[in-house]
Amino acid sequence: MSKSEHQLAKEHARNKKIIDTAFKVFVEKKIEAVSMGEIAQAAGIGRATLFRCYAGKTELVIAVCAAKWKEYLDELDERRPISSVGDIPAIGRFIFTLDSYIDMYRNHKELLVYNDNFNYYVTHEGVSDDELKEFRASLISADTRFDMMYEKAKEDKTFRTDIPQDEFMRVTVHTMMAACTHYAGGFIWGAEWNKDYTPELLLLKEMILNYVKC
Amino acid sequence: MSKSEHQLAKEHARNKKIIDTAFKVFVEKKIEAVSMGEIAQAAGIGRATLFRCYAGKTELVIAVCAAKWKEYLDELDERRPISSVGDIPAIGRFIFTLDSYIDMYRNHKELLVYNDNFNYYVTHEGVSDDELKEFRASLISADTRFDMMYEKAKEDKTFRTDIPQDEFMRVTVHTMMAACTHYAGGFIWGAEWNKDYTPELLLLKEMILNYVKC
Repeated sequence: MSKSEHQLAKEHARNKKIIDTAFKVFVEKKIEAVSMGEIAQAAGIGRATLFRCYAGKTELVIAVCAAKWKEYLDELDERRPISSVGDIPAIGRFIFTLDSYIDMYRNHKELLVYNDNFNYYVTHEGVSDDELKEFRASLISADTRFDMMYEKAKEDKTFRTDIPQDEFMRVTVHTMMAACTHYAGGFIWGAEWNKDYTPELLLLKEMILNYVKC
Repeated sequence: MSKSEHQLAKEHARNKKIIDTAFKVFVEKKIEAVSMGEIAQAAGIGRATLFRCYAGKTELVIAVCAAKWKEYLDELDERRPISSVGDIPAIGRFIFTLDSYIDMYRNHKELLVYNDNFNYYVTHEGVSDDELKEFRASLISADTRFDMMYEKAKEDKTFRTDIPQDEFMRVTVHTMMAACTHYAGGFIWGAEWNKDYTPELLLLKEMILNYVKC
């Protein structure tokens, strides 16, 4: 017997409530310091119900990461559908990518903070590749774009392709992400609290662009 | 009545044991997830003794950060005493600074990881400037060097000084530190586990040097 629409909608709403609550609590307190009981309480559901949805904390942590990245990437996809990028020069796509991290710093600091904590958590918990499958799936649109962009650059030569793709992406895009995460974290040595670091990120963007332009 | 030398040596050893143990446990589990009781147990002392040394977790967290940075900076100072830098061109000092972060990535990953967690923790606990005084003192040698370096560059013009000093340091040195922290954290999306990211950091160094050279 299949579930009624009403039942499915109810489950969907409950699941969204769990993910959103867990995200908020994980960001505030760090993943390591949060128990499943705490999440259940904050979401207003029973501990047993939470465990029926997610077998353990690791499953929940991965599901939250996947859902939040997907939410963000869907928003990006809407702003620039993957079907529309064909005619944009590689460097234009590259600038769009750098800008999207600066935008994340300005409007989605929590995602940067969570992502950073997530990376550390999965490293130290020894999460298997298999368990990360769902997370991988949520990032497929970003990966596809990067591949397309690098291929395009080989043709139109609007940025250098003498550094292998993976390394190139880490030196440029990862550096931008790491800097955005650094500033999203809050306390920066030697600066006033809650300063806006957009000017620094724009200079970093300029630095990266100088470096990659042919 | 002053304490005997024996007594002082004993206190010093106990204090070092507390700091080293707390550092190790904080790095492994994240500061947020660790209680004072856990630290006391791991250090093999009573909870009351720990609280006699440090009034609370925040005090301990700051003391650990100050001690570990001091340890590291003293090591750097030995390699290049502050009295010897007078004749080195500003760009030489700048390169030494970038290299010292790469060295930290290679040999002191835990300090980068702790420092990152520390920044987040003090932001979210709302630690006052007054409480951070000890920490500031531990970084004085680094700050002095940066000031001296930037002043030197204004004279010898071996790197650009058109960007104000604070902003310049954040765009260059902070970016290098953020990237080193990113790679020290462990899990990097799309790469095999425990990869050595020194090649990426050397390219980043090149990128920064291209940008700052006059």
